[in-house]
Amino acid sequence: MINQPSLEIEEKGFNKGELPGPCLKVIFGASGDLAHRELIPALYSLRTHKLVTEPWAIIGFDVKEFDDTSFRKEMEEAVKTFAEYDQKSWNEFAIHLYYVQGDFSKAESFLNLSNKINELREREKIPDNILCHLATPQRFYGTIINGMRTTILAEGKETGWRRIIVEKPFGDSKESAIELDKEIHNVLREDQVYRVDHFLGKETVQNMLVFRFANPGFEPVWNRNFIDSVQITAAEDIGIGTRGAFYEKTGVIKDMVQNHLLQLLCMTAIEPPVRYDADSLRSETVKVLRSVVPLKKENFVLGQYSAGEENGEKVKGYREEDSVSGNSMTPTFAAFKLYIDNWRWAGVPFYLRTGKRMKKMFTEVRIKFKATPHLMFPVEYKEKGNRNIVSFQLQPDEGINYTFLAKQPGGELCLRPVTMKFKYAETFGVKKSPSAYQWLIWDAMKGDQTLFPISEWIYNAWGIVDPIIKQWGEKPWFEFPNYAAGCWGPEDSNQLISQSGKWNMPPG
Amino acid sequence: MINQPSLEIEEKGFNKGELPGPCLKVIFGASGDLAHRELIPALYSLRTHKLVTEPWAIIGFDVKEFDDTSFRKEMEEAVKTFAEYDQKSWNEFAIHLYYVQGDFSKAESFLNLSNKINELREREKIPDNILCHLATPQRFYGTIINGMRTTILAEGKETGWRRIIVEKPFGDSKESAIELDKEIHNVLREDQVYRVDHFLGKETVQNMLVFRFANPGFEPVWNRNFIDSVQITAAEDIGIGTRGAFYEKTGVIKDMVQNHLLQLLCMTAIEPPVRYDADSLRSETVKVLRSVVPLKKENFVLGQYSAGEENGEKVKGYREEDSVSGNSMTPTFAAFKLYIDNWRWAGVPFYLRTGKRMKKMFTEVRIKFKATPHLMFPVEYKEKGNRNIVSFQLQPDEGINYTFLAKQPGGELCLRPVTMKFKYAETFGVKKSPSAYQWLIWDAMKGDQTLFPISEWIYNAWGIVDPIIKQWGEKPWFEFPNYAAGCWGPEDSNQLISQSGKWNMPPG
Repeated sequence: MINQPSLEIEEKGFNKGELPGPCLKVIFGASGDLAHRELIPALYSLRTHKLVTEPWAIIGFDVKEFDDTSFRKEMEEAVKTFAEYDQKSWNEFAIHLYYVQGDFSKAESFLNLSNKINELREREKIPDNILCHLATPQRFYGTIINGMRTTILAEGKETGWRRIIVEKPFGDSKESAIELDKEIHNVLREDQVYRVDHFLGKETVQNMLVFRFANPGFEPVWNRNFIDSVQITAAEDIGIGTRGAFYEKTGVIKDMVQNHLLQLLCMTAIEPPVRYDADSLRSETVKVLRSVVPLKKENFVLGQYSAGEENGEKVKGYREEDSVSGNSMTPTFAAFKLYIDNWRWAGVPFYLRTGKRMKKMFTEVRIKFKATPHLMFPVEYKEKGNRNIVSFQLQPDEGINYTFLAKQPGGELCLRPVTMKFKYAETFGVKKSPSAYQWLIWDAMKGDQTLFPISEWIYNAWGIVDPIIKQWGEKPWFEFPNYAAGCWGPEDSNQLISQSGKWNMPPG
Repeated sequence: MINQPSLEIEEKGFNKGELPGPCLKVIFGASGDLAHRELIPALYSLRTHKLVTEPWAIIGFDVKEFDDTSFRKEMEEAVKTFAEYDQKSWNEFAIHLYYVQGDFSKAESFLNLSNKINELREREKIPDNILCHLATPQRFYGTIINGMRTTILAEGKETGWRRIIVEKPFGDSKESAIELDKEIHNVLREDQVYRVDHFLGKETVQNMLVFRFANPGFEPVWNRNFIDSVQITAAEDIGIGTRGAFYEKTGVIKDMVQNHLLQLLCMTAIEPPVRYDADSLRSETVKVLRSVVPLKKENFVLGQYSAGEENGEKVKGYREEDSVSGNSMTPTFAAFKLYIDNWRWAGVPFYLRTGKRMKKMFTEVRIKFKATPHLMFPVEYKEKGNRNIVSFQLQPDEGINYTFLAKQPGGELCLRPVTMKFKYAETFGVKKSPSAYQWLIWDAMKGDQTLFPISEWIYNAWGIVDPIIKQWGEKPWFEFPNYAAGCWGPEDSNQLISQSGKWNMPPG
């Protein structure tokens, strides 16, 4: 049976490429949620995949009382919960894990940290390369960077590198992002700053670039002449968990739209970059944002979930969650339509949607082609004539689908939509490749900024959503709650897209 | 897991459409190989699939001595061998099966046939519609049609229809095809003549039209600006079996090239027809043939198999087969390059290849795109940049594959060819749909000529191959035998395609 690709995959598994050189990693806020859930599991996983070079060391830094032993114990539990734990790998990993207790506002704490770094570097023969991961609320960023200025950052100028990773959201408006950048740029050059948007680490997001620009068959039809509309969905089934206090201040626009959704928009709409490097890619994505037509609140549906049922279990409404106000107007859902005013996209509607407590976890970018200019087949297929769709699947499984019309087998000509599928895990046999997050940390270790947004991008992204956030704050145009947990969001979001069809739902 | 098509197939299984009305079918040459292998099994299968309307009747007509009972017995064995036999279906089918013994050259025989028809029509209440299938060597066509003229064809002009199906090859040169047509047209109108090319009944062949003309994403790149070259392969692993005498006179050009390969060429290269009907489709395919640049013998590799090994078994060479001359120069393999001189295809090489006793049964049309005009990715992928291929799989399994470059999972950007697949049987769940041959007989019962080549097409197809046949007859330019059974044909065929890559081989 011809069901093997006729061009075989030359290499199964994931591609390791060149490993980063040895370095020392400091996690600020090491006792926090992010370190538990993501950072330590990511570093552990990178090591078990043999993606790091020894000697190395990881120092956790935070106010909470730990010593090396108790910190390792705490993190062992985190890895058991959030990674593929095994005893032997853990032991090999844990001996490189250290802790320094300290206060971000005290010079003395930074001296302690600096001493620990120097001690480890000397003992373990680690080159003078330090990656600092700011896993704290962003209000501490300035303090921390200042604390590092005269210690960690003052040294090593000649002998190694210093880089920082910061988390999203970066600022909470264009103005505050510029302010925050000023603080950072007082101390660090832009090429030392890595702003994480973990969506950019996803295989399929990078694959969108490859699909479009390494293949000759798609780019010629990737424009307003052939494309009817674009749908981008990033639906989560989970609620806000224990992050009520954070979420109340953030809301879906700052949490998902300003970063992830606009990144997916950029990958869909980007012009061909000069080459695949940080400068080319980052300047082209900025161009996309600059071309976005200012959003109108009429095209912006916001929502907040009420109690409902998720995967067969009753779940609370947002206003009943811990640390959430009983009359909160914080949105947990957003759907909006936008246009990109350039030669390629003028007039093509882009529909973007994201939310918590939606029916399923499901992230996709979906390109719908226009109908054929002339349908030579019987007229009954006219309405089916625009069922041509390229869909990039990001979650839960990564892959690319191409839906087109084919003849149903049989004596009469009968057109039916069918789907060609490329599934990442199946094709490359990589069910357990490192996660998006891990690859980004790895890129930062290597000094590759290609998949990290530049300041200019961040400012422009805030520039797009700021007016909506402001108008919403002044006078909300929806009553909350307006969708039940476990559905696909408020009914108004269906109205929004009706001119171009319907929101896609994952099967099942 | 998102592995279901997001647009569901609305109807699984094969599409029946409108059934043909009741009719009576006469098979001339009913004791021959074709009737055993194809026609009776096809009619039996159409009935078990509930694709025919009763009342109906099938009359076998031939010189061999049979009565209804012995003919049924003989055909029961054929169905056991060549169809999905079951006792109950057979019994229901067999009661409609009759036999008339006669000589094609005797008026008396045709009178007998006519009497039998009238008797059955009256008894079974069959409308006055008769489909005659000429399953004899074509030298009898004229005699049979003359015999029918004053009997079967003289009646029914007001009350029903008369149609004939003839088999390929139709004529054995342009001149003889015109002669044969004259004989036929003396008695029948063109709209009564159904020239079978069973490749046109294949789902994927029809799907090539749907793929190109019902979908907006492919046609814009279906031309010389984006396509590098086209490969068409129809490889058979079988030899000539017991058909030595026939094959000696026919050879691969008349048996496969003039009909099947050129039809596949037409389906690949055709301009958008006005609509999906016989007139539009048939006139567009004629246009393709008219645009073919005259073939040069330098671009035409012929071959004949020697003894070898096929699927692990030793097999004879062509010259050792029954009824084949020990120094036969009849080709069993052809590979050639041609150009189509029109706006769409000028300069694009089409490589066509077919042969007996090749390594595997394997039929595909393979469109190779040009490389991207600019590859933004690291230069090491340059040679891989033209690995974009749309491939229509006709045998052994029907489907469409799209090979393109994707990013291998991992930290570094690494391009790999991957394949999106659409598999007919899997998508529609039709492992046992009626065969291509059956659908064509069914079309003829319905009076639909869309998938039957018109005279003009036949003449043009002969016009393309006649000069090669003539030159070969005068002075062969290869020594035979020149390929061993069980390989992919003579080495010269690889030279032929080297400018555009290699012949594709099925996996395994």
